[in-house]
Amino acid sequence: MAAVEIYDTTLRDGTQGEGISFSAEDKVKIALKLDKMGFHFVEGGWPGSNPKDMAFFRRIKSCRLGHARVAAFGCTRRPGVTAVEDANIQSVLAAGAPVATIFGKTWDFHVLHALGTTLDENLAMIKESLAFLKSRGLTVIYDAEHFFDGFKANPAYALATLKAAAAGGAATLVLCDTNGGNLPADIAAVIRRVRDEIPLPLGIHCHNDGELAVANTLAAVEAGATHVQGTVNGYGERCGNANLCSIIPNLTLKCGHETIPRQSLAGLTELSRYVSELANMHPSSHQPFVGTSAFAHKGGVHVSAILKDTRTYEHIDPALVGNRRRVLVSELSGLSNLMYKYQELNLNLGTSSEENRRLLEEIKELEHQGFQFEGAEGSFELLLHRAYNHYREPFKLENLRIIIEMRENSPVYSEAIIKLTVGDRVVHTAAEGNGPVNALDNALRKALEEFYPAIARMQLNDYKVRVLDEKDGTGAVVRVLIESGDGERSWGTVGVSPNIIEASWQALVDSIAYGLLKSGKETKPCQSGTA
Amino acid sequence: MAAVEIYDTTLRDGTQGEGISFSAEDKVKIALKLDKMGFHFVEGGWPGSNPKDMAFFRRIKSCRLGHARVAAFGCTRRPGVTAVEDANIQSVLAAGAPVATIFGKTWDFHVLHALGTTLDENLAMIKESLAFLKSRGLTVIYDAEHFFDGFKANPAYALATLKAAAAGGAATLVLCDTNGGNLPADIAAVIRRVRDEIPLPLGIHCHNDGELAVANTLAAVEAGATHVQGTVNGYGERCGNANLCSIIPNLTLKCGHETIPRQSLAGLTELSRYVSELANMHPSSHQPFVGTSAFAHKGGVHVSAILKDTRTYEHIDPALVGNRRRVLVSELSGLSNLMYKYQELNLNLGTSSEENRRLLEEIKELEHQGFQFEGAEGSFELLLHRAYNHYREPFKLENLRIIIEMRENSPVYSEAIIKLTVGDRVVHTAAEGNGPVNALDNALRKALEEFYPAIARMQLNDYKVRVLDEKDGTGAVVRVLIESGDGERSWGTVGVSPNIIEASWQALVDSIAYGLLKSGKETKPCQSGTA
Repeated sequence: MAAVEIYDTTLRDGTQGEGISFSAEDKVKIALKLDKMGFHFVEGGWPGSNPKDMAFFRRIKSCRLGHARVAAFGCTRRPGVTAVEDANIQSVLAAGAPVATIFGKTWDFHVLHALGTTLDENLAMIKESLAFLKSRGLTVIYDAEHFFDGFKANPAYALATLKAAAAGGAATLVLCDTNGGNLPADIAAVIRRVRDEIPLPLGIHCHNDGELAVANTLAAVEAGATHVQGTVNGYGERCGNANLCSIIPNLTLKCGHETIPRQSLAGLTELSRYVSELANMHPSSHQPFVGTSAFAHKGGVHVSAILKDTRTYEHIDPALVGNRRRVLVSELSGLSNLMYKYQELNLNLGTSSEENRRLLEEIKELEHQGFQFEGAEGSFELLLHRAYNHYREPFKLENLRIIIEMRENSPVYSEAIIKLTVGDRVVHTAAEGNGPVNALDNALRKALEEFYPAIARMQLNDYKVRVLDEKDGTGAVVRVLIESGDGERSWGTVGVSPNIIEASWQALVDSIAYGLLKSGKETKPCQSGTA
Repeated sequence: MAAVEIYDTTLRDGTQGEGISFSAEDKVKIALKLDKMGFHFVEGGWPGSNPKDMAFFRRIKSCRLGHARVAAFGCTRRPGVTAVEDANIQSVLAAGAPVATIFGKTWDFHVLHALGTTLDENLAMIKESLAFLKSRGLTVIYDAEHFFDGFKANPAYALATLKAAAAGGAATLVLCDTNGGNLPADIAAVIRRVRDEIPLPLGIHCHNDGELAVANTLAAVEAGATHVQGTVNGYGERCGNANLCSIIPNLTLKCGHETIPRQSLAGLTELSRYVSELANMHPSSHQPFVGTSAFAHKGGVHVSAILKDTRTYEHIDPALVGNRRRVLVSELSGLSNLMYKYQELNLNLGTSSEENRRLLEEIKELEHQGFQFEGAEGSFELLLHRAYNHYREPFKLENLRIIIEMRENSPVYSEAIIKLTVGDRVVHTAAEGNGPVNALDNALRKALEEFYPAIARMQLNDYKVRVLDEKDGTGAVVRVLIESGDGERSWGTVGVSPNIIEASWQALVDSIAYGLLKSGKETKPCQSGTA
């Protein structure tokens, strides 16, 4: 199978996505990462459009790249000027990148109505812009905007634009489904037509408006394209660009194409999370190949089969893309999920199958009440420990009071007063917060920190509330999920009650108990503690 | 083009998704909505697997459906028993649905290793399970699990399982890509092979592990499948099921198939958000067709072209799927949105463009803080009224105090003490509740009911909490959405604050104020009231 060039445009087209923005420094970090993984091209930005992109090109010049070639993006010259006079073309040149990717108009309708020039002038703009940049020593890639829609409207003119780009010295012609609305069969048919007419390497650039960007890209490669443009995690305008995190493993593992090296493929999950971290976007848990749920099994039937052979419910080995298998425990699960958890957690607790069955019943009952242990592995592990009496709680609640006071036009005052027994000591203390749960969290930490210094490193990262049965309005049952961390690991805990404070309390207590369990201090209070 | 049956499995396979769970009541609501939109089948659950699913089937029996047929899901009988003896088959029967969807094994490897029986016994299990249910008057759909993987491994045996299902009386044979790893060309080739061998209607059931579920479904239909299974928003195990919110518009608008009625297609965006609300999942903003970013335009080139002709950067008219165009970072588009709202609400408030601009700034500032007026039209309309000083608040808060008390192993006590001015009177009262917000709601009603008897008819139907910025743990900003009703109409209101009690208070106050506005009593207190 042919080798396929991977061209990343996360740093340019990806930033057109709503809410996506990178600093110049972030862009450099991502470019270096992509280079290290063996991506062939990294498009750094549109230097003519904003100063941040120009800063990226300045910085990246001083970095030694091992593999990737950096591309600067731009458009064809304006109508009626020469390429050398065009500010946008000059910016591309000034970026100092070895590759220029220039987009131009394919669709006659766009030329006449959006651009407002003649069809002939557009052909001249394409040819001259490319020829000028090539004459200055750059490799030039041509992005044919709206190629598929334009080809449908006027195939002869669409082909003429590509011939103009070829005449201008393009190294690769990239056909773009800019509006993202084409179907795979149409993409493949057009690629084959172009391949028969023009003897240059073809590329594909898809958008996901029909939820078909990955399929359209694969169809283009099957039809002969050897260059693929896309973004990490599919970031991009509207519904996003074609997702390289899915395209690369599909091309490599399923279609047998050479893309990035096999060992880099195993870095794909980390790449996805690294980029989402820098973009400050929540990673999508169900993202194919790299999401945390991509190899998560919930149904009992599935889990018992997975225990026998992972191929039964996994399309690939998750390790190939650096991901891992997870087994969830829920009302849909059976005894096999529980057994899997024992193994995973390295617990040798459940020996009698009668005990296990009772525990499973307890779990199902808790889930019926509204508990959910997916995303609350901390509470789940504590449940296992508690079920087998090996476990001593780190403290005991005696009394808790929360007072909230509010006057029109003044800030709300929230205070928690808490009385706990820790070992044989009684602690009675109070704290404020910017809400009742925050006050409670502050008071609890204040009470316990002297006994368990490890608490100082723990913090709440995430707090989620879900109303479970909404029919009763504010009388409904509430589920609170808390995610905590100590810098090294993170864990989730859960609480359920008709009272949001009680539900939060349960989740907070588990959060601290689990953190202590894992910090090695377990449940023994520090002797120097004073109340 | 052939008509394609739409079979929804959000309520069964969708709930296999991590974090997805519906109450029996939610399930009934979704089923009624899908029915109203013209879906052909609604799979309600697996009655043998948990009590919640059986509760759904009991409730849905008393509802009059106009179009959809309800299906109960189950597996073939166990090895070595008769169908009539099999508890799972009996549960399917007990569900009382007109359609049974039974899944069985295709892949010889699964039969031998996961199921642990012989190849012949598996064929008997398929045929006898279907024949038994058909003899009891049910329409039987056969879901061939792992069909494509099984066919690859042993085509003759895979076909034999379908022939067993046909002999058992299956109305439709649904080929499942259970592991979600197949490519569109493979799916199409297998469908064509089966179509040539077996003269029964074929269906397709895909998973999204390769980010290809929509493309695989379209490929199957192109190859002759006339029945499509999927879920709303693509919810489902691992990377999800095939997304009906993308499949339906692709099939209808792009491939020319008949699916659900055209007018229902315009309800697709609302359906997507309705289901994500009930699932308490953040809607994905970049979801194709129905996401809030799906037709959002950022940046100059696109926006100016869109202003000339929307076809320049939109693959379909967003109104066809009930979505709308958004132009980001554009004050002008914001003003036209506001004017649109005035018209929609039949308000003749804004006359001066200076006033409008100020109001627009205020709305943008509120949205920046986390307010959201979709689903909170009550608060939005009050905002318009308040902005133009035509409006008198029905009461004024003087002071509010909430006390929550909790001891280990005893119920939580929640009390709200409230002091209000209503007209020239002061009311000072208190109430308990099963949580702080419930206590607050009770106290507020108690205080106001004498002045505004209309309050007696109003009730809270729904209470939702969302943590907006999860990075700060319990210090994050919280948005509360309340849905209220008075038997005739229902309305939503919103509150935002770092303090959940304050956010709830804002939404509660708006809920009552809006209810009074609409009850015709407006803000004039009843004179017979006493404090």
